[in-house]
Amino acid sequence: MKPINVGLLGIGTVGGGTWTVLARNAEEITRRAGRPIRITAVAERNVELAQAVTAGAARITTDAFELVKDPEIDIVVELIGGYTIAKELVLSAIENGKHVVTANKALLAVHGTEIFAAAQKKGVMVAFEAAVAGGIPIIKALREGLSANRIEWIAGIINGTTNFILSEMRDKGLSFAEVLKEAQRLGYAETDPTFDIEGIDAAHKATIMSAIAFGIPMQFEKAYVEGITRLEATDITYAEQLGYRIKLLGIARRRPQGIELRVHPTLIPAKRLIANVEGAMNAVLVQGDAVGATLYYGKGAGAEPTASAVIADLIDVTRLHTADPGNRVPHLAFQADQLADLPILPIEQVETAYYLRMRVEDKPGVLADITRILADNAISIDAMLQKEPAEGEAQTDLIVLTHRTVEGQANLAIAAIEALSTVVDSVKRIRLEELN
Amino acid sequence: MKPINVGLLGIGTVGGGTWTVLARNAEEITRRAGRPIRITAVAERNVELAQAVTAGAARITTDAFELVKDPEIDIVVELIGGYTIAKELVLSAIENGKHVVTANKALLAVHGTEIFAAAQKKGVMVAFEAAVAGGIPIIKALREGLSANRIEWIAGIINGTTNFILSEMRDKGLSFAEVLKEAQRLGYAETDPTFDIEGIDAAHKATIMSAIAFGIPMQFEKAYVEGITRLEATDITYAEQLGYRIKLLGIARRRPQGIELRVHPTLIPAKRLIANVEGAMNAVLVQGDAVGATLYYGKGAGAEPTASAVIADLIDVTRLHTADPGNRVPHLAFQADQLADLPILPIEQVETAYYLRMRVEDKPGVLADITRILADNAISIDAMLQKEPAEGEAQTDLIVLTHRTVEGQANLAIAAIEALSTVVDSVKRIRLEELN
Repeated sequence: MKPINVGLLGIGTVGGGTWTVLARNAEEITRRAGRPIRITAVAERNVELAQAVTAGAARITTDAFELVKDPEIDIVVELIGGYTIAKELVLSAIENGKHVVTANKALLAVHGTEIFAAAQKKGVMVAFEAAVAGGIPIIKALREGLSANRIEWIAGIINGTTNFILSEMRDKGLSFAEVLKEAQRLGYAETDPTFDIEGIDAAHKATIMSAIAFGIPMQFEKAYVEGITRLEATDITYAEQLGYRIKLLGIARRRPQGIELRVHPTLIPAKRLIANVEGAMNAVLVQGDAVGATLYYGKGAGAEPTASAVIADLIDVTRLHTADPGNRVPHLAFQADQLADLPILPIEQVETAYYLRMRVEDKPGVLADITRILADNAISIDAMLQKEPAEGEAQTDLIVLTHRTVEGQANLAIAAIEALSTVVDSVKRIRLEELN
Repeated sequence: MKPINVGLLGIGTVGGGTWTVLARNAEEITRRAGRPIRITAVAERNVELAQAVTAGAARITTDAFELVKDPEIDIVVELIGGYTIAKELVLSAIENGKHVVTANKALLAVHGTEIFAAAQKKGVMVAFEAAVAGGIPIIKALREGLSANRIEWIAGIINGTTNFILSEMRDKGLSFAEVLKEAQRLGYAETDPTFDIEGIDAAHKATIMSAIAFGIPMQFEKAYVEGITRLEATDITYAEQLGYRIKLLGIARRRPQGIELRVHPTLIPAKRLIANVEGAMNAVLVQGDAVGATLYYGKGAGAEPTASAVIADLIDVTRLHTADPGNRVPHLAFQADQLADLPILPIEQVETAYYLRMRVEDKPGVLADITRILADNAISIDAMLQKEPAEGEAQTDLIVLTHRTVEGQANLAIAAIEALSTVVDSVKRIRLEELN
């Protein structure tokens, strides 16, 4: 059968991995797809690199805009990243009737609505398994595997860099800054790690998952995003003592009023399977009304794990490119004219439990004042940990775990607690999810 | 758009769950599938039950063979179970041009080759996500999500009853017989639990996974099957002390000579995520050459989790029933004319590590004799645990963990050890997999 011709935009880490895996598993992939899938053209600024990888087996160009118009190309794989050029290239590929496979979470989270509308109009597919959690087939699970379910919530460890840092902080009792330096040295963190450690990358992925779980447009700009840069080793220790681990979670939750979409450090019970996902590994926990909880675990980044997702998409597109668009899975899991109008809730309306760490004077009545404030704000207490003051100190740490409450209410209570003369310093607040 | 009409064979636990979830999530499912999916006819011997569940919203018949010929029906869902009648019904449905969705692992593991050949000939789909690991979309992950990979091995906790029993034995230090009784009382085990506790159910599921992972025909009859009935509490304790848990695993592994397909109690490192899958939960660990290890976790049984998988298949079939067969995922993941001819290896050729428990005389030279026998058989030792003899006893337990070896070689070594006059009783052998 006639091979499918793929044009590759960018042959860096993931592009190189895609080339390697397609070549190594060519026979196996052809046996599955029913026809060979081959990369016939590569657009790459670094021509030497492209030549080294392809060894003459593909046409190499530095002009990506020429490649996406090449009539010989059936599918364009976009692995350039970023918002601007990548967007133009993807839209041009679509305009030229090409199917697109992309690993670009930033692009989809921000411009997904426009891109999917263009693809819908042209009757082409835009596949993006590699955009979330690398090699874990979580997009397929959400769009197809769990399609019988009303998805209730998703909670994912979807950024390997931050999970590596948090694992190391806990294991070695080190500070964020120390571990970040080590992570950079080992190549687990970029020289400019902002996107990872500030939670932006996780928020891109959570945005994409929220869209396909609930059938809503991509709305990255409304996500609440908080990274791990202000996390202190002491809170990891206290959490441990209370039976919890701290993970950077991307959370999307359906509420009657709308959708919660948020990324932040989160205490989760240590006994949950997802709490034991260590190092740079990713995992996504999905709660469906029929199936209950399911978990998907694997490598969230790297050349070949990401290539695994890119090529799975290539095989899907190869299989379905001659099919009627109605035979294909809709881009956002729901039919394009069936997207819901659920608002993304502002963080003040999010409902969650809290870990509150307070530095208090070791005096009678302090605890009574604090518990009174929480009660006045209808916040009930789940657990408490009061440390003995250190030798010669008059202050001590008081940790309170609350039950679920609305964040706006928690803000009022925290402000009132901070106004107490016996409470030194600001209250340290970390959100807590039982995930049950 | 015109609804898809489904005929349901059997409205017991899973059938009832399917009815309930299809009704409850009708709007959500229609938004995904692009058209309503409705059960219009039910074949069920227990007419009262069927009437109670459907409340007049579907035609009820006691004649399943009439239903599978009904020209109004697009898809037949087979939830009767068993080999004989179910096989006739599925083949008749196919013959009548119906697509089939089934949860019947026994049927597919034993008669899959014949059924898929018939479906292939007729150009209809036979979908079976619900046949393995209930609500976990593992069939989709293996057939589609990981399609870029050369799958190296699969190891799954794919029988909830036995995992519940093993979890309870470990937690409470109870014997197999005691826990089985409790499991039966709680409804986790059937009155006749043979299929579960003897590993047959797990072997059906492992057989199905081996077929779609490696592109080989279903060959249940060649699987090695060993259940948990002879497992002793003492081995669970010793395993724990050595840093391992004992799980009933279904394993399918690619070797140069052929495929290992086996179900047996297995020691696995306690630190692996899959070792921490407790109670009736299921999990499948898959090793692919590109993606590395991925894990899929969730409920492996029950009305609604299984219905989740049945309905996901219904949505897939609804989407693709008007497509060309070439646009569909092949039944066994690989194109029908591309199945491989790899033999299933006999257990003697399987390669694995071992936990060996020996009852030995507390005399000098015993250890030397045993380690000499292992060395003579080219079996190297990974760890050893020797207990002090109990007060007043002249015998003690010696536990050896070996490195990987071929089972035939292990058999020779074990026979030689059992022939030693200082070794009392037979050697207790449990296979061990590091899963890395």
